[in-house]
Amino acid sequence: MAKKIITVSRQFGSGGRTIAKELASRLGYDYYDKEIIESVAEKTGFSEQFVAEKGERSPGKTIFSYGFDAGSLMPGVMYGMSANDYIWTEQCKFIRQIADSGKPCVIVGRSADYILKDCEESLHVFICADLEFRKKRVVEIYGDTDVKPEKRILDKDKRRALNHKFFTDLEWGFAPNYDICLNSGVIGIDNCVDILEGLVK
Amino acid sequence: MAKKIITVSRQFGSGGRTIAKELASRLGYDYYDKEIIESVAEKTGFSEQFVAEKGERSPGKTIFSYGFDAGSLMPGVMYGMSANDYIWTEQCKFIRQIADSGKPCVIVGRSADYILKDCEESLHVFICADLEFRKKRVVEIYGDTDVKPEKRILDKDKRRALNHKFFTDLEWGFAPNYDICLNSGVIGIDNCVDILEGLVK
Repeated sequence: MAKKIITVSRQFGSGGRTIAKELASRLGYDYYDKEIIESVAEKTGFSEQFVAEKGERSPGKTIFSYGFDAGSLMPGVMYGMSANDYIWTEQCKFIRQIADSGKPCVIVGRSADYILKDCEESLHVFICADLEFRKKRVVEIYGDTDVKPEKRILDKDKRRALNHKFFTDLEWGFAPNYDICLNSGVIGIDNCVDILEGLVK
Repeated sequence: MAKKIITVSRQFGSGGRTIAKELASRLGYDYYDKEIIESVAEKTGFSEQFVAEKGERSPGKTIFSYGFDAGSLMPGVMYGMSANDYIWTEQCKFIRQIADSGKPCVIVGRSADYILKDCEESLHVFICADLEFRKKRVVEIYGDTDVKPEKRILDKDKRRALNHKFFTDLEWGFAPNYDICLNSGVIGIDNCVDILEGLVK
């Protein structure tokens, strides 16, 4: 199919990041994940943690998101934009720059599927899995915390869905918004990589 | 993966039925599509057309769906059930019988993914495609009518989604409700069959 840009959206704990990384490695493609957060943080002056969190929180949840941001104690008005909008704008710019560079790559999260929806050379992937599979994986990878795995997963999914909806007006995880969606718990992480590698090649 | 039962849900005009039929043929599996409608029609006494339409209309849309059915001019009360519920119940029974028979099969539509959701040997597939791809395909396969292809497609999708939601309380087309979702317009119909065949084998 000659797809030069693969975007990978994923449910928390589904192994989407692992799949994306392995796919990039097998294909010899560049891999973008935390690099996007680092670049946006550098450009905007916000901390990486702040950028990472803003990418997963719907700005519509509080009136403080507009004009100034209560959480960060920063004025948050940049070129007339709220902190959320400023981060979103810089994120879009950076992702489009990656695409425009012409170098094949895999991009994880950050609504890159929407940002590059009109890019013909892209393949948009969504990775999901059943709750039990994800609960086990989240504890294995990120360790235990005071918050139960189920709550951590559902909160994170909800934030991603709300944030995606707010900026793109699309339903996160709705199959017709992607080219291929795989349940890693049923199909297996290695099989997912095999299928995607086969598709791109 | 040793999956003996493949359910295929699909957007109208996406080629889901073609994919399902070719997959069944390649795997040597039984194929159920209109056979379900025929069986339910025979069992309930309704016409095949009535059963087919009821499978794609949300009974929640009109109060007439309960107790009696205005469209069919039939009383529609069977064992205390509305016509819609009666058809749904017989459809569930028939699909579970197919699964219980132990013979490998591919089942198209009729919310079989939900009815067999707890069946470990099943693989649940959703086929979708962009509107332009589907408009072209609908005219090629079903011919032109007075109603524009776009309206026919969107109406049909809406009915399937509403009907699925009504009986299953699940979002039709939401990726986490399936094991694999494929955009046939992007991936290609033959490639879809290849991927599914590879997964089952």
